[in-house]
Amino acid sequence: MELHPYCRKAQFYETDAMGVVHHANYVYWMEEARTDFMDQIGYPYQKCATEHGIDMALTGIECQYKGMVRFGETVRIVMSITKLTPARLVIHYDMYDSATGDLRFEGESSHFFYLRAKNRPVALKRVLPDLYQLLSSLCTGADRE
Amino acid sequence: MELHPYCRKAQFYETDAMGVVHHANYVYWMEEARTDFMDQIGYPYQKCATEHGIDMALTGIECQYKGMVRFGETVRIVMSITKLTPARLVIHYDMYDSATGDLRFEGESSHFFYLRAKNRPVALKRVLPDLYQLLSSLCTGADRE
Amino acid sequence: MELHPYCRKAQFYETDAMGVVHHANYVYWMEEARTDFMDQIGYPYQKCATEHGIDMALTGIECQYKGMVRFGETVRIVMSITKLTPARLVIHYDMYDSATGDLRFEGESSHFFYLRAKNRPVALKRVLPDLYQLLSSLCTGADRE
Amino acid sequence: MELHPYCRKAQFYETDAMGVVHHANYVYWMEEARTDFMDQIGYPYQKCATEHGIDMALTGIECQYKGMVRFGETVRIVMSITKLTPARLVIHYDMYDSATGDLRFEGESSHFFYLRAKNRPVALKRVLPDLYQLLSSLCTGADRE
Repeated sequence: MELHPYCRKAQFYETDAMGVVHHANYVYWMEEARTDFMDQIGYPYQKCATEHGIDMALTGIECQYKGMVRFGETVRIVMSITKLTPARLVIHYDMYDSATGDLRFEGESSHFFYLRAKNRPVALKRVLPDLYQLLSSLCTGADRE
Repeated sequence: MELHPYCRKAQFYETDAMGVVHHANYVYWMEEARTDFMDQIGYPYQKCATEHGIDMALTGIECQYKGMVRFGETVRIVMSITKLTPARLVIHYDMYDSATGDLRFEGESSHFFYLRAKNRPVALKRVLPDLYQLLSSLCTGADRE
Repeated sequence: MELHPYCRKAQFYETDAMGVVHHANYVYWMEEARTDFMDQIGYPYQKCATEHGIDMALTGIECQYKGMVRFGETVRIVMSITKLTPARLVIHYDMYDSATGDLRFEGESSHFFYLRAKNRPVALKRVLPDLYQLLSSLCTGADRE
Repeated sequence: MELHPYCRKAQFYETDAMGVVHHANYVYWMEEARTDFMDQIGYPYQKCATEHGIDMALTGIECQYKGMVRFGETVRIVMSITKLTPARLVIHYDMYDSATGDLRFEGESSHFFYLRAKNRPVALKRVLPDLYQLLSSLCTGADRE
């Protein structure tokens, strides 16, 4: 499966009085990249949530700011699954200036799979083995189980 | 009933690259003032929505920008009900610089009452006559019915 | 000049506890459409602001909510200049569900041209006659001067 | 010096379609707590930035989500300086439900001191020894230098 990076143009309303994109917006961009990734692999969030009642609940976020992004610049977000267990998932994000290729941001989000109907964590491997298999095949880390 | 204005300090993340509060944030501040107003009159949104299943659904917003607000400045928001019918509500907002008293913003939001259970508009006057009476007594406009 | 509408996918973080896109986000989408429009006509905001020191300062916003937008839906935003005077500009926005074509939102933004260097309003017609001519040729309203 | 925690009521616009506060908002709340802290110790951000030309530039953020916050709930944010060097600062944030005292969130932000005039990092200890001394006296970590 050939996945393409997610590209996102920085908007004016995302800047702050320092003249650059405010740091909280990268958290939104990580979410956008996740959404786009799930669309690309054929398991849109809405489908997971509505049809299967499964959410990727968030437990943590890490952000490292490497450089500023300005209004009008486009970031290219390369997302990779660095850890997958039957019940958990860790995703890494590299954001580059699309014009220069310079790294602007590195981030990570940690998730567990959550079954709405029973209101508790669930092993994705058991309830959605196809999706688990797919994520596993895309996992670049050594931490695949 | 003595109502006090809602005061709100402008945050750094609300500024944009022009160095002042981005115009979309006033829409959030109008919502904050509404929420505070409902708290003050003893009908918090959550109570209306959860206990009674009634929302104040939004149909329109108007914003007039009179002056800029900067990070660290506090706005004093004076809210008034300018129109009330059994099924509809119009609210006006004046936002002042709390230090100088200068008018910074005037806005208006238009709402209809909405019954979640039946998924349709509803006459507040019929389903929550107490709240209707209260809002009516606070209505400053000529358009009270 | 052939201009295309601006398309925008609603993100999860733009939803609220009602399960639909929060009303303030349309204000951001109007800005995105404006930015895209200026890019399309060859006068990106940054160019206007940086090279020529001219901003399109906002004086007012109007929003009419016609229907809800949900996470994952794409809106198609058709923008038009409805009024242009040497010193002022009014823009209208229609937002449609891209799948069904249903109208979801109508909005308007009012602007004046602002010269940073002198910190005061300016006649675009005089300082940037090329851009003024271009906007004028795209103005669909009767209020062109 | 007696510092009080920063309290913040969760707003409706901060919720998402899961019915709880969206995870990005905690990043804003960390900033609000920092701003309030600087106000309390008598060195408001604006003063640092405008009078002294010094920013607390951000290099990283860490968020651990311990529980959900709902619209209308108030969080009590306890902020502490856990590391201070002449040029760098690490801040820790615990956010509690103000009604139950339950921990909802733990976060950390990492900063360096930045001199606008020279466009480069700077030793706070040298350029603003008073503020450095004050922060040092409030530092709870072992990593004070």
